[in-house]
Amino acid sequence: MDMQAPDVAYLGPSGTYSHQAAHDRFGPDIAYAEQRTITDVFHAVTNRGAVGVVPQENTIFGAVVETYDALSRTDVFVRGAVTLAVQHCLLVKSGTRLEEIETIISHEQALGQCQEFMRAYLPEAQLVRASSTAAAARDVLAGPSSCAAIGSKLCAVLFPGLTVLRQSIQAESANFTRFYIITKEPTAPLPGPPAHEDRTQAALLALAPSPKEASVDITTIITVLQLIVARIDRRPAANGVPFQDMYLLEVKGDMPAVEWRARVEKAIKRAQGSGADARLVGIW
Amino acid sequence: MDMQAPDVAYLGPSGTYSHQAAHDRFGPDIAYAEQRTITDVFHAVTNRGAVGVVPQENTIFGAVVETYDALSRTDVFVRGAVTLAVQHCLLVKSGTRLEEIETIISHEQALGQCQEFMRAYLPEAQLVRASSTAAAARDVLAGPSSCAAIGSKLCAVLFPGLTVLRQSIQAESANFTRFYIITKEPTAPLPGPPAHEDRTQAALLALAPSPKEASVDITTIITVLQLIVARIDRRPAANGVPFQDMYLLEVKGDMPAVEWRARVEKAIKRAQGSGADARLVGIW
Repeated sequence: MDMQAPDVAYLGPSGTYSHQAAHDRFGPDIAYAEQRTITDVFHAVTNRGAVGVVPQENTIFGAVVETYDALSRTDVFVRGAVTLAVQHCLLVKSGTRLEEIETIISHEQALGQCQEFMRAYLPEAQLVRASSTAAAARDVLAGPSSCAAIGSKLCAVLFPGLTVLRQSIQAESANFTRFYIITKEPTAPLPGPPAHEDRTQAALLALAPSPKEASVDITTIITVLQLIVARIDRRPAANGVPFQDMYLLEVKGDMPAVEWRARVEKAIKRAQGSGADARLVGIW
Repeated sequence: MDMQAPDVAYLGPSGTYSHQAAHDRFGPDIAYAEQRTITDVFHAVTNRGAVGVVPQENTIFGAVVETYDALSRTDVFVRGAVTLAVQHCLLVKSGTRLEEIETIISHEQALGQCQEFMRAYLPEAQLVRASSTAAAARDVLAGPSSCAAIGSKLCAVLFPGLTVLRQSIQAESANFTRFYIITKEPTAPLPGPPAHEDRTQAALLALAPSPKEASVDITTIITVLQLIVARIDRRPAANGVPFQDMYLLEVKGDMPAVEWRARVEKAIKRAQGSGADARLVGIW
């Protein structure tokens, strides 16, 4: 591997909110590599050492399960988080009017966030899922004028022929998406300017009752950590045992980085001692 | 309200896995009322006292967020749970061959569960979300022969002209869906034969740090309950505060019903005393 700065892989194509969040964090002076799916972002990180930016959570729609499943099943490391304010637009080919729209294309989270708008103004429209908001915008450009996309204002700038028909169509004005920054190695250097937003320390842990100690309770595991828990998320363990779970815990602290790392590592050892499968998925 | 047995509302139309789960629990001798969405099942329960059957979780795809959000925001009561083994089929109009399929229609959970099959055999097919697997089957009957649905084998029996092209196309063989039974009143009588499956006691609690006591940690709230926790699920609190969460905890016990109720009520009081907004969403 050469010494040049790694590129930043994000859920593309260009114009997605992931693209915008990556730009906000790493600036204009590095290479960005658009990916087709969230899973492809993880592959870019594991296969060729790219830095990945993946959506973790939205204030309205909640946790992004594709990201959580990939985090629990892939050998990557979370290095930080960035938060972006989301403003959804209804995008159409120039000239299309609201009453002509029969199909609305977007990422499932954007469709979820704009349910109320669609119920009120386009209750008969068919909803079609796309891999991203920007892919939906391209589909609209390539399709009949009865199609609309939900996506960023940036799309109307990037793609000539596309117009913003309605702005801020999401259900709530407090619409933020939070992203995780992921790398293959825990100490891989990050490109761009140093982070200034996240002063508070955090870490992400993967926890599950060990199959050998099925009697251990998730409450016990969380308690022995002796850490402040910011988020608890449950996903199927994907080990073939019905209804067996994996928990991803984001914990937080406010202390020097060295001290924080030591405290988290001790917490994981205590969880393992209590009969849990426990591993560090990220620390920042 | 008259004295006749309440009907059972489920995510229709007829032929869905929800329909099958409802039948398995309540038998053939009562009235079933199909609903268009999970939200409509909740409305049938709150508006006219129907018994509702709503999907809570699938072993592969995880928790059903629409159900969790409705449980945390609607005044209904969980009365029990039923578990169903799911076997997905690829359904087409009689005569359609695999290589002719251009569009696959289904509920988002079924699409998620069959991702590997579609990636291997139909990577170019467009995915279209429907409100249920059975609605998708009807869409296929009404559409061109290039459309396929993912749904239950029952659909091919209920809808003449529909054929099973492939069976058991889900990613894992251990595919189960668990459903909650909901009523408007905590003591409303349930129709059909008495439940025999769930001997273990359970309860569902909604917990959130009280806005007045923002410093209270979710770990503290879970610990003071002194109950065995089976599931922890996190959803946005929907109070307009970005990244403020609501937790839904399913807890379990194994004791007489009266004792169990007293223990859960005491646990909720302790959580409230620790600065949490806590309420009972269901007990069985």
